[in-house]
Order: sequence, then structure tokens, then C-alpha cells
Amino acid sequence: MTEPLDVAKLQRRLAEFAAARDWQPYHTPKNLVAALSVEASELVEIFQWLTPEESARVMDDPDTAHRVTDEIADVLAYLLQLCEVLGVDPLAALDAKIDRNERRFPAQ
Amino acid sequence: MTEPLDVAKLQRRLAEFAAARDWQPYHTPKNLVAALSVEASELVEIFQWLTPEESARVMDDPDTAHRVTDEIADVLAYLLQLCEVLGVDPLAALDAKIDRNERRFPAQ
Amino acid sequence: MTEPLDVAKLQRRLAEFAAARDWQPYHTPKNLVAALSVEASELVEIFQWLTPEESARVMDDPDTAHRVTDEIADVLAYLLQLCEVLGVDPLAALDAKIDRNERRFPAQ
Amino acid sequence: MTEPLDVAKLQRRLAEFAAARDWQPYHTPKNLVAALSVEASELVEIFQWLTPEESARVMDDPDTAHRVTDEIADVLAYLLQLCEVLGVDPLAALDAKIDRNERRFPAQ
Repeated sequence: MTEPLDVAKLQRRLAEFAAARDWQPYHTPKNLVAALSVEASELVEIFQWLTPEESARVMDDPDTAHRVTDEIADVLAYLLQLCEVLGVDPLAALDAKIDRNERRFPAQ
Repeated sequence: MTEPLDVAKLQRRLAEFAAARDWQPYHTPKNLVAALSVEASELVEIFQWLTPEESARVMDDPDTAHRVTDEIADVLAYLLQLCEVLGVDPLAALDAKIDRNERRFPAQ
Repeated sequence: MTEPLDVAKLQRRLAEFAAARDWQPYHTPKNLVAALSVEASELVEIFQWLTPEESARVMDDPDTAHRVTDEIADVLAYLLQLCEVLGVDPLAALDAKIDRNERRFPAQ
Repeated sequence: MTEPLDVAKLQRRLAEFAAARDWQPYHTPKNLVAALSVEASELVEIFQWLTPEESARVMDDPDTAHRVTDEIADVLAYLLQLCEVLGVDPLAALDAKIDRNERRFPAQ
């Protein structure tokens, strides 16, 4: 039986993965944000010529669905590694940001 | 007492936030990936002229630390909203990706 | 009377502008490509929530037209500065690329 | 004998290339800015793990030099096509921007 996935567990796996390959010297915050933005653009590339309607059906094709899921994983991987090196808790950061946005953009 | 943060809870808050403002029509996958890449670039902007060493000390300045944390929250917000509209589980996607990477890049 | 604009003249103005402010140490190729991608994303930001039809009318509003033109200038500025530090002729590079694309994607 | 390259000539070649392949319907401003940002990120990808010093020597390796030149061509291609559909003169836009920047950031 495996324990359920959570962010801390994935951060641990990513840190061990990088350490086993001696990749930490490359993982400066500057490099990690560049890599994060590159992966985000690889997601954009999948959608760039699609109409809004086609973009809504992107998971219907198994190959495209796999590609999209894979790029989402890459974005999350670099985001979690960035948070690790900076000491930022991503879930707490988002929770606080939603609080601020609720004050900034009051619902009607 | 509040329950601990998790991805599902944040996705629920984000969905309620968007619904209360009638923003869902804008949240096509194509638009969400564009917004995700824009937020990732706002992170890059903070680091673009820094040396690797300066980038490693970015959290020492409280204002910059706040800005970085805020942009990380924005990236995560769009990533989780994208996952929601596409029906992708981001933690499972990353776990599967690390598995594949372990086979693809065997440690020495 | 002024001479007509061309790429070499603009590159000269950009180089003098940077030199007068001692900005050259920041203009490594790595930093310039980051800045280029950030400016490209600022263009995306203007369009991210627009429908395709709205995006086609973006120049009808003078303020948005100014913003778009300004971001295009920023993208071109970093692209030309990158070409300058790398010794790449951007017009020749594009001309050669169109030649290759004509062979790679033959017209019907 | 060929006439010298200039931006207008390249824009004409790009327009004919797209027209011959019926690609114009895809070339909304929104899609072109997305494609522009994706190509800019492909440039970033080449540099993302390099030190500033390594990035300054990127043209020493012929394969990398070719890749860099190719991506620069792609960025310029989408920038010129965007300018074409929006009716923006990129060189005039940049010239005006440098004027504004000279007032905004006075040299010492």
C-alpha cells in the first residue's frame, strides 16, 4: 500500500532525483524560473493554432492528452523545485493570494 | 481550526472565485495556458538581470521575496485551474513523470 | 532630412543607449533571451482573454494600439541587441529560414 | 544579382509563404503573439542551464550556433507577421521607443 501523494512527497522525490544526478548546481532560482517558463511555453505550443472550441476538446485525442499531461507535470516539477530552493510553500502562497484577490476583486 | 491545505481544496476555492465573477467563459484551456506562461514570465522578469549568485539571495529582500511568492501563487493558480478544466490530476501527472524520468535518465 | 530607418541604424542606437548607461555587463546572451521572452509574454498578456475576433480589432482602441506597438518595439529591441552580441544578421537568418521552410513545407 | 534584404521584402516573402499554404486563417494576432512567445522560449531553452560565461561562447559550437540562428529567425518571422496583420511598422515603433527611453532613463 502506498501513502497518498502530496506536494511535500513530490518535492522529496524531485530533490532525490536531482541529487542522484548532481544536477543541483544547475538549479539556481534564475535557471529554474527560466526552465519553468520554457515548459509553460511548451504547453502554449500545443494550443497555439487551435480555436477556443478545439482547445476545449484537447483531451479527446489520447496522444495530445498525454502530451498535455506530460507538460503539466514538467511545469509543476520546476515550480516545486523552485519553491524548494527558495523556501516558499506554494499552497500557502496560493491560499494567501486568493485571500488578497477576494478583497481586490469583490464579487458582485 | 482550519483543515490543512491541499490541492483539491485550492482548486475548489479557485473555481468558486471564478464562478462568483462569471469568469469561466474566459477560462478555455487555450487562454489558461497563455495566462500560465505570462505569469511564469513575470517570475523570469524578477531574475532576468541577476547573476546566478544574486538570484540565490533573492528572498533576503522582503519586497522581492513578497513579489516572488506572489508570482509563484499566480503560476500555481493558473496551473490548477487548467488541470481542473482538463480533468488532469497534477500530482499524479508529476509522480508518473518522475517514474518515466528515472527510467530515461538512470542515476550513475 | 533624416536617413531612412534600417536594422543596422537601430542596432547602433541601441548599442549607444546601453553603453551610455553602462548596461553592457547585463547584456549576456542568456539575459537578453530571457528579456526577449519576457517582452513577448507582455504582448501575450494583452491578448490572453480576447476571442480571436476581438484580437483582430485590437488596434481600434488607441490606448491598446499604443501598448501593442510599445511591446513590439521592446521585443525587437532585445532581438536586435541579442543579434549584436552574438554576431547574427537577423534578416539573413530569416531569409535562409524561409528558403528552408519552402523545401520543408512545399505549397500544394 | 539580388536586391538587398529589408524588412518589407521579408514581410512579402512571409505573406506569400502563408498564403500559398492557406495559413492566414490561423494568423490571428492572438495566435501570432502566442507563436512568437513560444519561439522566444525555444531560444531561452538553449541557454537555460548555461552560466553567463558559457552563454557568451554559444556561437563557438557550430551546431548550437545554427540552432540559435534558426530560433532568432523564427522569432523575427512571427514578429514581422504580427506587424503585418496589425499594420505596425516595427522599425518606426522601435525608433520611437528609443526616443522615449532616452527621456525616461537619462544617461549620466
